[in-house]
Amino acid sequence: MSAIAFIGLGQMGAPMASRLLAKGHSLTVYDINRAAMEKLAKEGAKKASQPSQAANEAEFVITMLPDGAIVREVLFGVHGVTETLKKSALVIDMSTIHPLESEKLHYDMTQAGFSYMDAPVGKTSDHAVTGTLTILAGGTDQQIARAEDVLLCMGSEMIRCGGTGNGIKVKIVNNFMSIALNALSAEAAVLCEAMALPLDKAIQVMSGTVAGKGHFTTSWPGKVLAGDLSAAFMIDLAHKDLNIALNVAGQLNVPVPLGAAAREVYSQARACGRGKQDWSALLTHVRTLCGLRQTVE
Amino acid sequence: MSAIAFIGLGQMGAPMASRLLAKGHSLTVYDINRAAMEKLAKEGAKKASQPSQAANEAEFVITMLPDGAIVREVLFGVHGVTETLKKSALVIDMSTIHPLESEKLHYDMTQAGFSYMDAPVGKTSDHAVTGTLTILAGGTDQQIARAEDVLLCMGSEMIRCGGTGNGIKVKIVNNFMSIALNALSAEAAVLCEAMALPLDKAIQVMSGTVAGKGHFTTSWPGKVLAGDLSAAFMIDLAHKDLNIALNVAGQLNVPVPLGAAAREVYSQARACGRGKQDWSALLTHVRTLCGLRQTVE
Amino acid sequence: MSAIAFIGLGQMGAPMASRLLAKGHSLTVYDINRAAMEKLAKEGAKKASQPSQAANEAEFVITMLPDGAIVREVLFGVHGVTETLKKSALVIDMSTIHPLESEKLHYDMTQAGFSYMDAPVGKTSDHAVTGTLTILAGGTDQQIARAEDVLLCMGSEMIRCGGTGNGIKVKIVNNFMSIALNALSAEAAVLCEAMALPLDKAIQVMSGTVAGKGHFTTSWPGKVLAGDLSAAFMIDLAHKDLNIALNVAGQLNVPVPLGAAAREVYSQARACGRGKQDWSALLTHVRTLCGLRQTVE
Amino acid sequence: MSAIAFIGLGQMGAPMASRLLAKGHSLTVYDINRAAMEKLAKEGAKKASQPSQAANEAEFVITMLPDGAIVREVLFGVHGVTETLKKSALVIDMSTIHPLESEKLHYDMTQAGFSYMDAPVGKTSDHAVTGTLTILAGGTDQQIARAEDVLLCMGSEMIRCGGTGNGIKVKIVNNFMSIALNALSAEAAVLCEAMALPLDKAIQVMSGTVAGKGHFTTSWPGKVLAGDLSAAFMIDLAHKDLNIALNVAGQLNVPVPLGAAAREVYSQARACGRGKQDWSALLTHVRTLCGLRQTVE
Repeated sequence: MSAIAFIGLGQMGAPMASRLLAKGHSLTVYDINRAAMEKLAKEGAKKASQPSQAANEAEFVITMLPDGAIVREVLFGVHGVTETLKKSALVIDMSTIHPLESEKLHYDMTQAGFSYMDAPVGKTSDHAVTGTLTILAGGTDQQIARAEDVLLCMGSEMIRCGGTGNGIKVKIVNNFMSIALNALSAEAAVLCEAMALPLDKAIQVMSGTVAGKGHFTTSWPGKVLAGDLSAAFMIDLAHKDLNIALNVAGQLNVPVPLGAAAREVYSQARACGRGKQDWSALLTHVRTLCGLRQTVE
Repeated sequence: MSAIAFIGLGQMGAPMASRLLAKGHSLTVYDINRAAMEKLAKEGAKKASQPSQAANEAEFVITMLPDGAIVREVLFGVHGVTETLKKSALVIDMSTIHPLESEKLHYDMTQAGFSYMDAPVGKTSDHAVTGTLTILAGGTDQQIARAEDVLLCMGSEMIRCGGTGNGIKVKIVNNFMSIALNALSAEAAVLCEAMALPLDKAIQVMSGTVAGKGHFTTSWPGKVLAGDLSAAFMIDLAHKDLNIALNVAGQLNVPVPLGAAAREVYSQARACGRGKQDWSALLTHVRTLCGLRQTVE
Repeated sequence: MSAIAFIGLGQMGAPMASRLLAKGHSLTVYDINRAAMEKLAKEGAKKASQPSQAANEAEFVITMLPDGAIVREVLFGVHGVTETLKKSALVIDMSTIHPLESEKLHYDMTQAGFSYMDAPVGKTSDHAVTGTLTILAGGTDQQIARAEDVLLCMGSEMIRCGGTGNGIKVKIVNNFMSIALNALSAEAAVLCEAMALPLDKAIQVMSGTVAGKGHFTTSWPGKVLAGDLSAAFMIDLAHKDLNIALNVAGQLNVPVPLGAAAREVYSQARACGRGKQDWSALLTHVRTLCGLRQTVE
Repeated sequence: MSAIAFIGLGQMGAPMASRLLAKGHSLTVYDINRAAMEKLAKEGAKKASQPSQAANEAEFVITMLPDGAIVREVLFGVHGVTETLKKSALVIDMSTIHPLESEKLHYDMTQAGFSYMDAPVGKTSDHAVTGTLTILAGGTDQQIARAEDVLLCMGSEMIRCGGTGNGIKVKIVNNFMSIALNALSAEAAVLCEAMALPLDKAIQVMSGTVAGKGHFTTSWPGKVLAGDLSAAFMIDLAHKDLNIALNVAGQLNVPVPLGAAAREVYSQARACGRGKQDWSALLTHVRTLCGLRQTVE
């Protein structure tokens, strides 16, 4: 069992700390909210008056905080963790913060001689209570191997995302995708209803197509991801069908801002000469515009 | 075996007509492109000089044409199908046309005493060749029952989409969703690359979450579709995470127009007082703005 | 005074026709709405039973119709204008229709040996009544010279937009700009109010800057339009300021979809290496992406 | 002449400080860049080793810094301005920072017993050199009266924007508008070129219409700003004309993301029952969606 400093006892942090206690770890906790500390103290945690005090004897320091500025304050501020932390300890930031702030924290911690990794979590506070979170671990193989037992007290699954920083990067991309997809799905669903098409029928059909299953594992692997831009479904035709849908939406007064933005991307791809390429070539198009190295043309 | 008039022998129509011939049906074909007709004639089809001639003896008339104006011309124009068509025949429009044009055609055909249904297809011309298209059938139960054998010569699967017009509506919604989703997926993928996060790692993670699996069958059924807007994941938090992602994208100069449009929808939902509701409540938000009946608040 | 056929007596067409009568021209009118014809007949117009009859003796044919398909029908349909029109007459389409449809009509009319120009109008039906419309004339110098007296019966100003088709093109671009600008202005105004900033104060300031005066005649002429992309105001700084505004809007839940879309364009321009160029270089950026010839880099 | 502490000697700050020296004020300067301080010292400024030292004797403290976090550090950090500042002094923040950060700084300064106002500047570094900036003054009448002589050493015009915080708010709204308008203008201009319409002709026309002159002082004052939503130009017609333009843009592959976003706002306004209202009612529509008090319906 390990000596762990746990800093940040909010809606997610509190049940995560409870799980570590329940699994037999020795915990010292800190939060600006005293009541949150008291609750954990009743479960057996020691209370610290400052982050530096919490970190004093720790093998692991876990931070679960609202944003990157607060993580930085906790680590490097007055009475911060680094004032007392042993160089042999491992700091694991499990917060959802800005990836570029995380990168800077990693750099500064490394420069100061400390070991730092990121491990944000997926799912909800209900899963935190039951210890069934998904852990997105970013760190060296050694860091992850060392942290694994501790992390799996809080989660039922740990995904190795690559080097330090990749955990939080994966989380941000994943949430970008799912949150925007939710808005796009609402557009499609309301378009159904406005056309008097039963949503369950549309969902039934889309569940069997790329509309419901997504492109990452269906239309992309054999085409753009394999370097093949020959058309299974041409960008020109995608543009045409999207135009029909936008026209219908306009006539029925269904606002479809994401669909409208998408058409402009297809228009641009056509202007760049990609009309006869496979629709998955949209990835190549966007990559090229961003100045990323072109592996497939 | 049936007497079928097949009008429109393009990239999709020609192989579909071939399949019908191969299955033993008696075909009369028409296309403005004479070469396309000759090719089918060699396979056993009769050639017509006008749509009206093609339709003369037909039990079924199948149209596979570029747009709604052409379908209308073929049916109601000079030398059009309706000049000769028997009232007992069934017209099946398999084209991808504007759903509101399709609706109008259905109305006009019905007024004129003819039987009309829509059955656009999913998948590609390769599947047309092998007769493995997905048929999206819109029509009455009787129409679909009558057409089923004919349609399944061209496709390996037929989905009953409900009444006439629903086939084309399902197709348009499905394509709206998949085509816009492709653009959104490209944004997420390029964001990965700009952050130096391996795309395969991100895809691996997203394949297990709603980012890859979509909302229709995961996050929506137990919440908004069941009338429950209590938060599993709050709109406020979705807004916050999306802000982080957009901030990263801005710093790395990755254009994310769909993601940016999505944030504005979440901002609007928050302005309307939905910040503490489940993110699936975005559907209710968009429905409400469109003046659709509110079943769940 | 001239013999004029006037076809299309709607909200705009009816008062325009009245003006021509009041100025002493000899009018034959046609509309599918008989009541509209009766009204003009009381003012002295002859009624035609078909477009072809109206055009029979005309030196000028003026069309003021809802869309391009109807203009085409009126000109080339059964009992259409071209059945009887003299080759020496001039057809003036004053409708607001799709520019590419207008282009096709011009081509077809010219092929058939007729003289055709476009002259859509600016302003409202109130101005039609008082004959103070703005006329956007597209045609050859000779056509415009010939039509000028007739057109200026209906409008107080005539702008020569260049060759045939340019009238309708100018109108569409002008309306695109003003209609979208209205939506952008609403975003800025609501952002003011959400920040508790009096709108009249903001309008006072913006009226003196490019925000209110526009770019076409202020920031562009000396820079991008003169081939100078050196920065008076860098794209990087515009990106930064826009980020601040979007951040404020997000915190205050003001949806700013146009502002959000704009940021993505600036991000893209930066990704293409234009961050240190003048903000007017956004024009060069968009031109380049469209594959237009690059005159300034 | 006044004793002024000037903190922040960047591209804008350095020439502004020079102007104050040239006008005879007594300046103590501070910047983390020693070379920048040396340059001002040669012009007669005293150098400070810390913000607190610079502020020690000052009647005015002027800050011209990159962002709000740095302004806060300079005022409240270790060796910050507030360690030594006299309660009778006036702090003038001329930086372009986040309005909500500015608001918080104002609150904290006032709580600490200090006098604080904001006065960001318009125009460019060339104008800073010649002392012809536009000053956007936010503060009480007394603060502005006291600061006016000092501020007008740096600018040729001072606009009273209302109470403290309004200067920076006006600047952010103004820049939001002008920066997004630049992107919209590029869309219109490229649409011209793609249609082979000379840009100078289009600019000539638009300069005389609301497209070039903006809505704030033309189409809005007599309508929405006066509480009159009766239609001079209906939202339905604006929607129709915008659809034509977007259709043209799509056919010509001109990406128009702002125009596309605008159409969705008009669709939404129509869905909310505003189709027959004046297009300026879009302002009312957006205000209502944001939950702002409705003064006009």
